[in-house]
Amino acid sequence: MNNIHGFASDNNSGIHPDILAAIEKANTGHVIAYGDDPFTANAKNIIREHFGECEIFFVLTGTGANVMGIAAVTSPFNSVICAETAHINVDECGAPERFSGCKLLPVETKNGKLTPDSLEKYMHGFGFEHHSQPKVISISQSTELGTVYTPEEIRKLADFSHGYHMLLHMDGARLANAVVSLGLDFKTITKDAGVDILSFGGTKNGMLFAESVIFFNKVLSEDFKYIRKQSMQLASKMRFIAAQFEAYLSNDLWKKNASHANNMARMLHDEVINIKGIKITQKVESNGVFAIIPEESIKKLQKEYFFYIWDDKRSEVRWMTSYDTTETDIINFTRLLKEIISTTTSNPHNSKT
Amino acid sequence: MNNIHGFASDNNSGIHPDILAAIEKANTGHVIAYGDDPFTANAKNIIREHFGECEIFFVLTGTGANVMGIAAVTSPFNSVICAETAHINVDECGAPERFSGCKLLPVETKNGKLTPDSLEKYMHGFGFEHHSQPKVISISQSTELGTVYTPEEIRKLADFSHGYHMLLHMDGARLANAVVSLGLDFKTITKDAGVDILSFGGTKNGMLFAESVIFFNKVLSEDFKYIRKQSMQLASKMRFIAAQFEAYLSNDLWKKNASHANNMARMLHDEVINIKGIKITQKVESNGVFAIIPEESIKKLQKEYFFYIWDDKRSEVRWMTSYDTTETDIINFTRLLKEIISTTTSNPHNSKT
Amino acid sequence: MNNIHGFASDNNSGIHPDILAAIEKANTGHVIAYGDDPFTANAKNIIREHFGECEIFFVLTGTGANVMGIAAVTSPFNSVICAETAHINVDECGAPERFSGCKLLPVETKNGKLTPDSLEKYMHGFGFEHHSQPKVISISQSTELGTVYTPEEIRKLADFSHGYHMLLHMDGARLANAVVSLGLDFKTITKDAGVDILSFGGTKNGMLFAESVIFFNKVLSEDFKYIRKQSMQLASKMRFIAAQFEAYLSNDLWKKNASHANNMARMLHDEVINIKGIKITQKVESNGVFAIIPEESIKKLQKEYFFYIWDDKRSEVRWMTSYDTTETDIINFTRLLKEIISTTTSNPHNSKT
Amino acid sequence: MNNIHGFASDNNSGIHPDILAAIEKANTGHVIAYGDDPFTANAKNIIREHFGECEIFFVLTGTGANVMGIAAVTSPFNSVICAETAHINVDECGAPERFSGCKLLPVETKNGKLTPDSLEKYMHGFGFEHHSQPKVISISQSTELGTVYTPEEIRKLADFSHGYHMLLHMDGARLANAVVSLGLDFKTITKDAGVDILSFGGTKNGMLFAESVIFFNKVLSEDFKYIRKQSMQLASKMRFIAAQFEAYLSNDLWKKNASHANNMARMLHDEVINIKGIKITQKVESNGVFAIIPEESIKKLQKEYFFYIWDDKRSEVRWMTSYDTTETDIINFTRLLKEIISTTTSNPHNSKT
Repeated sequence: MNNIHGFASDNNSGIHPDILAAIEKANTGHVIAYGDDPFTANAKNIIREHFGECEIFFVLTGTGANVMGIAAVTSPFNSVICAETAHINVDECGAPERFSGCKLLPVETKNGKLTPDSLEKYMHGFGFEHHSQPKVISISQSTELGTVYTPEEIRKLADFSHGYHMLLHMDGARLANAVVSLGLDFKTITKDAGVDILSFGGTKNGMLFAESVIFFNKVLSEDFKYIRKQSMQLASKMRFIAAQFEAYLSNDLWKKNASHANNMARMLHDEVINIKGIKITQKVESNGVFAIIPEESIKKLQKEYFFYIWDDKRSEVRWMTSYDTTETDIINFTRLLKEIISTTTSNPHNSKT
Repeated sequence: MNNIHGFASDNNSGIHPDILAAIEKANTGHVIAYGDDPFTANAKNIIREHFGECEIFFVLTGTGANVMGIAAVTSPFNSVICAETAHINVDECGAPERFSGCKLLPVETKNGKLTPDSLEKYMHGFGFEHHSQPKVISISQSTELGTVYTPEEIRKLADFSHGYHMLLHMDGARLANAVVSLGLDFKTITKDAGVDILSFGGTKNGMLFAESVIFFNKVLSEDFKYIRKQSMQLASKMRFIAAQFEAYLSNDLWKKNASHANNMARMLHDEVINIKGIKITQKVESNGVFAIIPEESIKKLQKEYFFYIWDDKRSEVRWMTSYDTTETDIINFTRLLKEIISTTTSNPHNSKT
Repeated sequence: MNNIHGFASDNNSGIHPDILAAIEKANTGHVIAYGDDPFTANAKNIIREHFGECEIFFVLTGTGANVMGIAAVTSPFNSVICAETAHINVDECGAPERFSGCKLLPVETKNGKLTPDSLEKYMHGFGFEHHSQPKVISISQSTELGTVYTPEEIRKLADFSHGYHMLLHMDGARLANAVVSLGLDFKTITKDAGVDILSFGGTKNGMLFAESVIFFNKVLSEDFKYIRKQSMQLASKMRFIAAQFEAYLSNDLWKKNASHANNMARMLHDEVINIKGIKITQKVESNGVFAIIPEESIKKLQKEYFFYIWDDKRSEVRWMTSYDTTETDIINFTRLLKEIISTTTSNPHNSKT
Repeated sequence: MNNIHGFASDNNSGIHPDILAAIEKANTGHVIAYGDDPFTANAKNIIREHFGECEIFFVLTGTGANVMGIAAVTSPFNSVICAETAHINVDECGAPERFSGCKLLPVETKNGKLTPDSLEKYMHGFGFEHHSQPKVISISQSTELGTVYTPEEIRKLADFSHGYHMLLHMDGARLANAVVSLGLDFKTITKDAGVDILSFGGTKNGMLFAESVIFFNKVLSEDFKYIRKQSMQLASKMRFIAAQFEAYLSNDLWKKNASHANNMARMLHDEVINIKGIKITQKVESNGVFAIIPEESIKKLQKEYFFYIWDDKRSEVRWMTSYDTTETDIINFTRLLKEIISTTTSNPHNSKT
């Protein structure tokens, strides 16, 4: 499958050449392990230029960033409220519960986005010892459904959280895609919008293994170095994570990569929107396209391209684009899709009960 | 401090060029994330050529490999017996306890090595519900004190463990150094010697971030994929760990790197053994040199070279060599050491109460 | 508030005199602590007469019984499916998550009862390491809404569970109330209906502190003694739990107490069903009555009687009866309720948006 | 074995009649469950009369009290330092590690008592993320070896702890025995001596199931109610724990019981001290006698009396007395012991290698 860019996930892609070059550049002599090195210090400074004053900790996986960020600000008797579709709820094998001890309260949403209204029903039982105490509201930006929160929407959730002495956590595994989608900058949709703890990831946008946890309130991060170590996420050769972030935030690489991925999703959307039998199910605001397609076409298409079925009850699929998706990829993929569907007579909308 | 090779730790070194080249070579197109890719399959096959039939899981940190390997074969009511100096006991911030729930039973040793005799006193309370049930004996090969277990010593510990229906875990963060020290091969000192679970690491011998957990009894590994995911150690772009292992085990790279590091430790040993006021405290069997040096010399030496004080009560220091340590590094370092000591009159052996 | 029997919870009641007498009778001389005593052996035999062959472990709290029973048969990467209203989900402060590490998947229900249909959507992701692996379906008998599963309904859930290699757990904190409601016996609605793990409690039906975990499959209980100890629930003076169970299961005490409590709930239902402005919201099948009452009446009523508001959005309240509730309690309570309502003009059904 | 008072443990005894009478007296009508009742409020006031201002939480087991008290004031990356013989280290099946996540650091002692000197070597690694951060020093009063700390010794440990920003925890499962041994009062050897968190138990001195966690610094207890619930130790019918404490602290019951138990240990000591072949190994300062006796005599003696072998390597046994041990028990027991030994020719001091 080499050299074909599929639509399974943005993490099926490789390493952007600039990122690899940065790793190579940092590969010089000895530096102190575990982050006490000049590369790490420098990368943190660059991150602060983009996000404002904050505490930054480099880690290795997105799941790690989410789980540790939540564990850092909770006690095991707390609860964490998130969209039912949130990565922390459905794609981390219960790591948040195991490591933090907290209860997750999944909220049904139409588009992967929480609103204060949808949270109101969970705002009870404060001070009642039988009840897991709500402490964190966690949102994904961009969401697992490819949608994007506006800064105003985030601010409302932050104010809502803070009004209950709770904290707002953001899973930013695809934060760059949201920033370029909104035409804004990192700080506006995180710190300035009231986010307290951020998972800022890069693996899905061209890095190798490079994630981070960012605290906008220094007090919250005081014990984090121990939590990171105890979470088995303290990398010895940390300079090589730092070097990736430095390259990522230099020369607008993050922006170029994310813009390209988003544009490819937009192009894919435009190509398939008019195919008979296909129904786009979510707004295409970042680098994912969700569509209901004829059930019979899925397996045929998957023979050539790997992608995930999102909801097999209604033959809904997810197509993710990436920094390295090409226009040719889109054209070839949609051409095949059209061929498959045109040889299919069934209608997806009545093919399932 | 760039381009100076200190003696702080083998993980202060960078990435071996062959490893970096392998990462670059694997950076081609899309492959399925999380290990279902041809690079991962291939690397596992190569590992099996060296270790015999086994189940292999790639992970990101050495602490992760140890903790997950232990958690995979224990229940929280078990205990894990290890040397007091074991990495799992003193350098992982309690991650084994937190993640596995187990009690660690540290055993005092003279040289970092367990023996059946030293374990006998812990072999009680089986079946008694008030007592943490002993389940794992964990050894490090080579040890944190630079010593090396012979295959016979390992076999005795394996037989001892199995005699109590316990398992033998090996922390092989520096396994290659032990193999070359003994002049043997990987299989002889692991599978053939009765080891059940192995942390096989490469980060300390020239890799970027690349560790693995190896089970020689397939049954023990059945749930490990969930444990790895829940441990936040499942890397999305796993091909790049696999590619490192492939390069590491090709062209004897592991052997060249480890031999070189060991030889540099031997050279360092030979240079300092005759300096008046220095006492070597452990056999130099791999890539570490432990020495008592005049207390007053430590700070002076640390101004130029970063290294760790092992036991400040008796001014014992640890010097680690690495795959990239050069003869010049040794010569310059020992020259400085001699200068510093010659300008010092105090005797380390009576400088402390 | 002494000598008034309120409707807050069946655990607001005291100890039945026969239970207290049994404690006193067991208070003779020394016996070995922690359960290795004749009282414990005898009580287990009596339980087996009622439930068939099984393994029994006495514990101290209902939450403990539930959490330990679940922890005994799961790994932290598993999920546990239960009704959204289940005690394990809403009344245990996240203890199941913290102690077992598992994810809880709450299912919306109309009457507190799960059905195979309602579970179907959770039966996916088996073998997929990103997904918490479903392992236990947990039901409450009788439910937290006062409803009762028939043996056929339980059997269907057991078959469903077992079909997916999962286990059926029953929270039987109010098991006796269900047995008498159905006019059956303990075995028919537990072991014979396919239940695998049972929390069999008595505290809510006249005991002091006495709960138990029962395994109908011996293999599942093999490590339970360690889990109980590690859960801090191993009582030293266990004979006094055993003596309570012995008295409870002798002379049909369990049946008399539960029948009485159920009858009182029935009487309460019959008294209030015709009061204008009151709407019964759940079938009264055990010892709880759920009703929507005029919002304005709640506080007035609570001045005299303590009870819980179940859903303040629709002014729904819960009234629990107990083994010691008297007909006079019901008469006095409903008389007051009628008085309060008759002086109220508002209609509950439009008093809330 | 009824009506014989053995020497296995003080928790082999039953319930003191005054305690049982108090339970019976509290068994009147309904009160709010989970501690919001007048019995609980009253008992807390009485405790405060003995201990000074403090926060009190009733729980069900001694292990629970210890584990929750430690968990309340630690994070999982902390370590807890205790004597190797501490109940938390050897008799709780790893519950402290599992529930708190902390590492336990066991200190070898001669008499079960910690001293600042013995702790000094653990006072390092503060701020170093690889190292479990020392947070709690835990002592038992009286100790598991029957010895007793003086208030001055406790104060020194408290000052030592606080000097490192650590806390002093006391396992007071046998606190009353220490108080009467010293001829002091509760407050002098707890609050006034600098103890921060206390497990204050009564089960071993005549209660049924009644333990408590006491915080002398209110701030430390702020979240404790959630921790207690999540630990499965929140008793619904809490009034019956409270009533026990009330009776225990009234009419000097605690003092009478503990004095009697201590006196019986003293009498036992005086009876056996002169038997040839017996060597007392610990000072008899509370209600336990530790002795090396001829190996051959142990099994014979255990046919009639149940007691524990403390160290089978040197045929050391533990004999515990209790509030209900009688002089006749001592006389009969020592008579049998003398008989057995007189028919034995071997010398214990050379019967073991």
